[in-house]
Amino acid sequence: MVASLRLPSLTSLLFPATTRYPAALRRTVCLRNRPASGFASGTAASTDAHRLRSKQAVTPRSQDFNAWYLDVIASAELADHGPVRGTMVIRPYGYAIWEAIQEYLNVKFKETGHSNMYFPQKEASHVEGFSPELALVTVGGGSELEEKLVVRPTSETIVNHMFTQWIHSYRDLPLMINQWVNVTRWEMRTKPFIRTLEFLWQEGHTAHATPEEAEKEAKQMIEIYTRFAFEQTAIPVIGGRKSKLETFAGADKTYTIEAMMGDRKALQAGTSHNLGQNFSRAFGTQFQDENGERQHVWQTSWAVSTRFVGGIIMTHGDDTGLMLPPKIAPIQVVIVPIWKKETEKTGVLSAASSVKEVLQAAGVRAKLDDTSERTAGWKFNFWEMKGVPIRIEIGPRDVSSNCVVVSRRDIPGKAGKVFGISMEPSTLVAYVKEKLDEIQSSLLEKAVSFRDSNIVDVNSYEELKVAISSGKWARGPWSASDSDEQRVKEETGATIRCFPFEQTQGIKTCLMTGNRAEEVAIFAKSY
Amino acid sequence: MVASLRLPSLTSLLFPATTRYPAALRRTVCLRNRPASGFASGTAASTDAHRLRSKQAVTPRSQDFNAWYLDVIASAELADHGPVRGTMVIRPYGYAIWEAIQEYLNVKFKETGHSNMYFPQKEASHVEGFSPELALVTVGGGSELEEKLVVRPTSETIVNHMFTQWIHSYRDLPLMINQWVNVTRWEMRTKPFIRTLEFLWQEGHTAHATPEEAEKEAKQMIEIYTRFAFEQTAIPVIGGRKSKLETFAGADKTYTIEAMMGDRKALQAGTSHNLGQNFSRAFGTQFQDENGERQHVWQTSWAVSTRFVGGIIMTHGDDTGLMLPPKIAPIQVVIVPIWKKETEKTGVLSAASSVKEVLQAAGVRAKLDDTSERTAGWKFNFWEMKGVPIRIEIGPRDVSSNCVVVSRRDIPGKAGKVFGISMEPSTLVAYVKEKLDEIQSSLLEKAVSFRDSNIVDVNSYEELKVAISSGKWARGPWSASDSDEQRVKEETGATIRCFPFEQTQGIKTCLMTGNRAEEVAIFAKSY
Repeated sequence: MVASLRLPSLTSLLFPATTRYPAALRRTVCLRNRPASGFASGTAASTDAHRLRSKQAVTPRSQDFNAWYLDVIASAELADHGPVRGTMVIRPYGYAIWEAIQEYLNVKFKETGHSNMYFPQKEASHVEGFSPELALVTVGGGSELEEKLVVRPTSETIVNHMFTQWIHSYRDLPLMINQWVNVTRWEMRTKPFIRTLEFLWQEGHTAHATPEEAEKEAKQMIEIYTRFAFEQTAIPVIGGRKSKLETFAGADKTYTIEAMMGDRKALQAGTSHNLGQNFSRAFGTQFQDENGERQHVWQTSWAVSTRFVGGIIMTHGDDTGLMLPPKIAPIQVVIVPIWKKETEKTGVLSAASSVKEVLQAAGVRAKLDDTSERTAGWKFNFWEMKGVPIRIEIGPRDVSSNCVVVSRRDIPGKAGKVFGISMEPSTLVAYVKEKLDEIQSSLLEKAVSFRDSNIVDVNSYEELKVAISSGKWARGPWSASDSDEQRVKEETGATIRCFPFEQTQGIKTCLMTGNRAEEVAIFAKSY
Repeated sequence: MVASLRLPSLTSLLFPATTRYPAALRRTVCLRNRPASGFASGTAASTDAHRLRSKQAVTPRSQDFNAWYLDVIASAELADHGPVRGTMVIRPYGYAIWEAIQEYLNVKFKETGHSNMYFPQKEASHVEGFSPELALVTVGGGSELEEKLVVRPTSETIVNHMFTQWIHSYRDLPLMINQWVNVTRWEMRTKPFIRTLEFLWQEGHTAHATPEEAEKEAKQMIEIYTRFAFEQTAIPVIGGRKSKLETFAGADKTYTIEAMMGDRKALQAGTSHNLGQNFSRAFGTQFQDENGERQHVWQTSWAVSTRFVGGIIMTHGDDTGLMLPPKIAPIQVVIVPIWKKETEKTGVLSAASSVKEVLQAAGVRAKLDDTSERTAGWKFNFWEMKGVPIRIEIGPRDVSSNCVVVSRRDIPGKAGKVFGISMEPSTLVAYVKEKLDEIQSSLLEKAVSFRDSNIVDVNSYEELKVAISSGKWARGPWSASDSDEQRVKEETGATIRCFPFEQTQGIKTCLMTGNRAEEVAIFAKSY
């Protein structure tokens, strides 16, 4: 829309739309009216507006985890299918969670000396033949390109191409950058947030003068991700090192954070790679050290993506829908005014509105749902399904007693409901903030205890197989070969998620070979 | 780097790099050593590190505006060429300016009720033949796609496809969203920041129940852009309405902000479109109004892009290099410690460091350049070229008198230098903040007076031609036909930039036809 787009041809681009999406089709695919809409899982899980009035908005999690996941995403308006297979439209409520992730990490990246920048998305490709996970631009400017362009699946290639131009001396190091961008990978089996043709992520890339610095950086970044997961998203990830088989192709070491989802499958939620000199040798990225000698730089790269949003959904959600940790919830408190007679309405709405303002002024992300078209009951269900941590109810009697009712999303029914909390600003703000903290801690505790009760210590391959087939994670001493690891994968469907940083002391015997082992590994099925 | 990328094929993607960029070539294209590096304009404009020591780092602006522009971008490390023709790597210093733009606008967008979200970049294309400004993905997942995918040049198509699914009732309106994304347009003649194959922008899209609301929204957004341009970037844009010929293909009305660059060419720096019902009729985007009748929605879209960074460079820069308005400068104050003897060093560095901390604590973006490898003179030139608004010098005598020297980037030489400013925190902070405000105002005033002295009021086509051929903008009454407008373009190279919102009163006579005219138009050559 800025000057350079030529208008006549844009018209032809924009307006064949009429023929592309005939009105009949559009109405059939309408989100709220068709039986299996958006990511919803089937007729039983319709997100039809009428169904939201009942408590049956989403398939119960216990009944069908995958159907539940898709239903939550559709009903809570987190995302929708894009028109192209495997693509995803991230809707405002889902995107706000991503923004919360960005805001936290962006500050941490800058505090640790990284600068944001932007590399082009399209790169010349000399890859022989067709690579299965890539999208290629072959037509541009109205004609076939002589050289196919790869649409960024990750940026190591161009980053290193530019690093060779920017790095000359030890004075140019460390070079520490990050970018927040979209990436494209041609996935065959897609799942919203977890695996889509296009997703959003940040990718950090650094170059250092010594291997020690690169190792320290790679460890520092996985530590930042770990703290983020625990403190902001209440996901008790397990940090560790990948096995050789699972290490990123260009890395010496890959560090990972592994999260246990509600169905006990593992989700790799972030990685940090010590790339050693693999890329600098391939690209010839050298610097002159303090003694005037030319050396190859030591590098790292690290990333988290919109996949994290999927991890949050699958860690905390329940039969009722989404459950968001307060620190990353776009709405922390929803205020639902309740009135029957028109005479009550003004007083209730005015009290509700001042409660909202008091909370917002105190930095609480509060929303007032004052529409007249929905009943209070409908609103309760709707905001519970959207995972808002706290609901405040205000009725005529509350107005006269200058009190409100506070309900916690994480404690269902009456047990989570407290009456008679004073509307007096300082009291109310203190109470709400304390409850938000309690919910944050409680979600983490619940997730930790779920995680720990589903990890089995195993000492033999038989025990490992039993653990995995019962849906749990298996943790046991491992020093066997790559082919043994491959065999475990083929026979059980589980892979080594990591050698966790936290290791037990004492002599260990490999569960597979009986040989001495230095470390325990964690095995699990994964997304 | 997150789980889903298959490793073996990634290796083949990443490592043919060795053959792609042979070491010999890499060294030749090295930014600092080759004669015409990065965006630099030629041998005379080398950004060779040695040249930075002299004052000849960039081609003088007066000598060759385009060469100067490219030199500034290269020398100030704002951007580099990407390996693919017409692409651009936005480096940290340039990206930080874009981040300042994002931070300001993102807040304004949210304050006015817009939510961020994300639409997929790739869309099915039914465009007949090849469209000259599009990039098409034709290969994905290892094989030819049945349906070519368009790489997003703008998102009206997919936005409207989704709007038809989200909008049903007047209760769903207004729907107001925005996204910060990359877009691709296959430009033949590229220029960094101004016109590249890929650039970054925000695109807002809204749907409303009435034409009045849509018009109000379109006007509100161009007003937000205008205030941003004036108050943050010190660019005195002229807001107005595009002529019918220059209106966006899908819009009823296009509003624009037009900026005068240092070479007096116009830059369209942002647009806001009232789309009327053009898209909603094409896509059948309807809602049920309060009376139960089905209506097509009324829409707007609006955008600013990384082009704005180019506008800032070309508005304020001078022969010395970049000159940044304090409000969007990544570094507002650079502190240069000066010492000769080693005995002086500790005292000077410690004073400089505490000045930095005092300023940073007060919210000033301050940087201490304490490297020992460069002389103070080199640093002066370097940071002037990078456009930092204020330089603080601290030498041994300043330390003993507890004072600093403050130099303004916008006033060259001794005139801009003030000695004996107290280091006492409250005095220094107040002084620096006052100077930053003065510089901000002064840059705007200078730009306003440059703009106004280069706009000529014309009353005939002859006068218009004289004004345009002398490089100025022409402003005159206009009610002539589209073909007359086309003729002006062909004969003078100038187009109607806008019918400005600010119109003079009184009876007007069309400069071309002598007929009655309602408005004056502004004509200029443009980027």
